[in-house]
Amino acid sequence: MANQKQKSLSLHEQHPGKVEVNSTVKVTTQEELSLVYSPYVAEPARAIKENKDDVYKYTSKGNMVAVISDGSAVLGLGNVGPKAALPVMEGKAVLFKTFADVDAFPLVLDTQDPDEIINIITNLAPSFGGINLEDISAPNCITIERTLKKTLDIPVFHDDQHGTSIVTLAALINACRLTDKDLSKLHVVISGLGAAGGNIARLLHKVGVSNIYGYSLEGVCSYKHYEDYDFSVQELLDEGVLTPSDSSSLETLIKDKDVFIGVSAKDIVSKAMIESMSKNPFIFAMANPDPEIPYKDAKDAGAKIIGTGRSDYPNQINNVLAFPGLFKGVLKARAKNITDEMKIAAAKAIAYIIEDKELKDDYIIPSPFDKRVVTEVSKAVYQVATK
Amino acid sequence: MANQKQKSLSLHEQHPGKVEVNSTVKVTTQEELSLVYSPYVAEPARAIKENKDDVYKYTSKGNMVAVISDGSAVLGLGNVGPKAALPVMEGKAVLFKTFADVDAFPLVLDTQDPDEIINIITNLAPSFGGINLEDISAPNCITIERTLKKTLDIPVFHDDQHGTSIVTLAALINACRLTDKDLSKLHVVISGLGAAGGNIARLLHKVGVSNIYGYSLEGVCSYKHYEDYDFSVQELLDEGVLTPSDSSSLETLIKDKDVFIGVSAKDIVSKAMIESMSKNPFIFAMANPDPEIPYKDAKDAGAKIIGTGRSDYPNQINNVLAFPGLFKGVLKARAKNITDEMKIAAAKAIAYIIEDKELKDDYIIPSPFDKRVVTEVSKAVYQVATK
Repeated sequence: MANQKQKSLSLHEQHPGKVEVNSTVKVTTQEELSLVYSPYVAEPARAIKENKDDVYKYTSKGNMVAVISDGSAVLGLGNVGPKAALPVMEGKAVLFKTFADVDAFPLVLDTQDPDEIINIITNLAPSFGGINLEDISAPNCITIERTLKKTLDIPVFHDDQHGTSIVTLAALINACRLTDKDLSKLHVVISGLGAAGGNIARLLHKVGVSNIYGYSLEGVCSYKHYEDYDFSVQELLDEGVLTPSDSSSLETLIKDKDVFIGVSAKDIVSKAMIESMSKNPFIFAMANPDPEIPYKDAKDAGAKIIGTGRSDYPNQINNVLAFPGLFKGVLKARAKNITDEMKIAAAKAIAYIIEDKELKDDYIIPSPFDKRVVTEVSKAVYQVATK
Repeated sequence: MANQKQKSLSLHEQHPGKVEVNSTVKVTTQEELSLVYSPYVAEPARAIKENKDDVYKYTSKGNMVAVISDGSAVLGLGNVGPKAALPVMEGKAVLFKTFADVDAFPLVLDTQDPDEIINIITNLAPSFGGINLEDISAPNCITIERTLKKTLDIPVFHDDQHGTSIVTLAALINACRLTDKDLSKLHVVISGLGAAGGNIARLLHKVGVSNIYGYSLEGVCSYKHYEDYDFSVQELLDEGVLTPSDSSSLETLIKDKDVFIGVSAKDIVSKAMIESMSKNPFIFAMANPDPEIPYKDAKDAGAKIIGTGRSDYPNQINNVLAFPGLFKGVLKARAKNITDEMKIAAAKAIAYIIEDKELKDDYIIPSPFDKRVVTEVSKAVYQVATK
């Protein structure tokens, strides 16, 4: 691990950085120079002036995503600010290009004021085909995304919210396929009600799961804590997405439940708690790098299917399964919004990469290196977008 | 020409667009994924959090320039807005990469309010090693550049102002070398007092030219029109950069002068006017695509040295000679500002690419494809920056 840390530093130092901006055209002669720049670049400029939509025809906009962060909630590191967030955003841009041939440019902002961020992104929008918000703390990320979704004519996606919820849904679909359980009848506990947890609850609710219970720093989610919650958690209660519970602790809440989804903190779940759940429970313990319960403990306590955020255990719930194909699909369709239907289509596409007969306790999630993932996700999303 | 216009449209349509964002690292295995992104991208993030300057060590920032426009003064097309400006900014990014291996990313803004533009660029600065402002109308471009130069810790450059003035100075240096004239003693008329003209005047003044006269839509520059000028032209008078004249027209102003520099409009100079100038005058008629006087007319009227903005005549005053090497030098030196000394060093470097014995009336400016240009300009600028 120390070795991997050093390897990462060396890798980042060598270029330095992980992205570069290349030309797709040659400029080796005076004629080429005159076509690419002055005077004949005036032609596409004129065409776009006449017909704004031609910006998709003559520029890179249509395949260009902005990966934008304010550095307020970076990985597990917290509020590290824009400069420290830059290697992460570059990494995201690398994944967009590598997995989906989508061009993505990392932008880190020197402000954490949501109104300023909204204003900046609004004014940057003409350059991009889509906006991927990243590592912005809750609930600002929700305010920013909602506002931009309403006002911009290009798709806006906050990966920490929606990427995670798509892949979690994919995992749950396959856990149910493997065990012949009915997804909508599952009783689910979600620990962590920030960007990821709140949106996982919403997407599960959308596909018919009606018993979803929440747990957060305030305790078990109920109206008792209502005034302590930010607006996003209040809405989850108001809209009936989360079912309030009068359990006094996570320990009592988790009893007899079928699924535990953790996007919170390490070691908050014990073996005894897993043993108190319904038979053969699903445990998605995604806190990174240390999950809510160690993999082996969950296994020993009788968890049927275990997913984590880590690549060194089976069933990694990894956003890279979702966002590259999702954006490829919406960009191709030139969709103005990313809808719940597209997210559900993406989750199903990820899940059904694995055939019935291939499904196993430790193989409910395909590998991000499975080339079919991006193809199937983008196809599914494109179909919904153009329907 | 119709043919070239069609060629340009086809070239822009084929990719579409002219830039792409590539990864400099491979991601083909789980290990590589873990180094480039979660979890080990946390290492450079942590290092930068501890030492902000490490952002240059571990990210692409240090070689990354933002090419930013509000679309308010694009080429000769005017205020075409951000989307129509995008092919031009992509073209600029292509030239940065092709000529100097500097990464540059095109950003067009959906606002033309200078305060908003300043705020946006300020907040974008952490992602970039330098800012190249482009095709922003005067005098806003001057306000924006001045403010950002004061507040940002990375170099800010408005190419329409400074790129043009550097290459014009290079041309003038060589015209003097060839004719054994003393640069500082030249009497110069500048037609057009916007972004380019104002800054050409400033740079010439800086190197000792004390007789510079202006001409603009208001007429010959004098205190008579003071109230009609924007602040940038008023300053040129207040600071003694421009010498006021009581000539009633360009025709009378140009009489007996040594140099005419046009960054204004076509066909405002006649053969008779050139004939009225001092013997063997220098005519830099840079209005694009149609110069202030047709090349042949200037020649016939006795102009000794003629430069234009066009690539199909000798001595093209082309900004591409300056900005790639200039930025390469300042980025390498990690200079916080681009100073007049650096601009003068760049101009001299461009000029002295051509040896004394090679200089000719129709060869005072090197070709942009001369590989020595970017090398010499970046070296000269680097030396000044690190002095």
